[in-house]
Amino acid sequence: MSADQAKGFCLWFTGLSGAGKSTLSKAVSEVLRGRGRNVEILDGDEVRENLSKGLGFSREDRDTNIRRIGYVCHLLSRNGVIAISAAISPYRSIRDENRKRIGNFVEIFVKCPIDVLVHRDVKGLYKKALAGEIKNFTGISDPYEEPLEPEIIAHSDTETVEQSASKIIKYLEEHKWL
Amino acid sequence: MSADQAKGFCLWFTGLSGAGKSTLSKAVSEVLRGRGRNVEILDGDEVRENLSKGLGFSREDRDTNIRRIGYVCHLLSRNGVIAISAAISPYRSIRDENRKRIGNFVEIFVKCPIDVLVHRDVKGLYKKALAGEIKNFTGISDPYEEPLEPEIIAHSDTETVEQSASKIIKYLEEHKWL
Repeated sequence: MSADQAKGFCLWFTGLSGAGKSTLSKAVSEVLRGRGRNVEILDGDEVRENLSKGLGFSREDRDTNIRRIGYVCHLLSRNGVIAISAAISPYRSIRDENRKRIGNFVEIFVKCPIDVLVHRDVKGLYKKALAGEIKNFTGISDPYEEPLEPEIIAHSDTETVEQSASKIIKYLEEHKWL
Repeated sequence: MSADQAKGFCLWFTGLSGAGKSTLSKAVSEVLRGRGRNVEILDGDEVRENLSKGLGFSREDRDTNIRRIGYVCHLLSRNGVIAISAAISPYRSIRDENRKRIGNFVEIFVKCPIDVLVHRDVKGLYKKALAGEIKNFTGISDPYEEPLEPEIIAHSDTETVEQSASKIIKYLEEHKWL
């Protein structure tokens, strides 16, 4: 299929900090690029730098940030690109708002128990959050609303990155996204 | 040429309010879509609603807004899309910053003498600006820095929309963008 017939869509990863959204989204994007698709990953930090400088981590500011990511994913996906969001996106209502706006939307819940994340704590953020040094930290001092009906769940505590990536690609093939 | 080989680029329209950026960009986008290309127009008002709510019209806020448009044009154009900006973008330095970032950048100056625009005043904005009812109005109470070396100048006071659109398409063909 040539890209001018290719269907753009959005892969919306959601999950706690450290659950593996970025790693998994990169693995998936490599497979997709290998199939000749245009893929853009909207990473939480990069978007904050470029679209949301000055916004903080209050509910309102988080919502604004996630809406902006949704808008850009909308523009990309309706132009044949596979747009990937890899931000935490803790609130269900804004994810659902983006789902509705974008239409071609596949939600992937990167699920990992919080005690595993606290134990791993690759970036040392959970330790700081538990010590009260980081405020509004999702899962510790700020809510995370799990998706009720995500298209895919990646269990990052029990699956390897390769296993989760394969599951996602298989889903996309079976549902005619690819 | 199929779209997966198609080169994305950015058409950056700049000019005073009412000069005809939106009208001309729409005419050009129709020709490009007719050739099977993916095209996205980033209109000033729509972007302010979706990416820059809360920003005003100070130099700093305008710069932030135009940088955000540039970022989105960058994401689109590097994924094979023709990204069109149709915002006033009054400051040269930010246009040049976007040119540098995006790379595949064609600047189109939609030029019309200010007295013609004031006389036409389709939206009644110039009258209000001259009466001091709108502050920071580009060309009246806020600067507009003309491009020094735009790739294309569309003289909207003497050319028809069709003539300007044809000139742009011809330029894009001659310079192998199409």
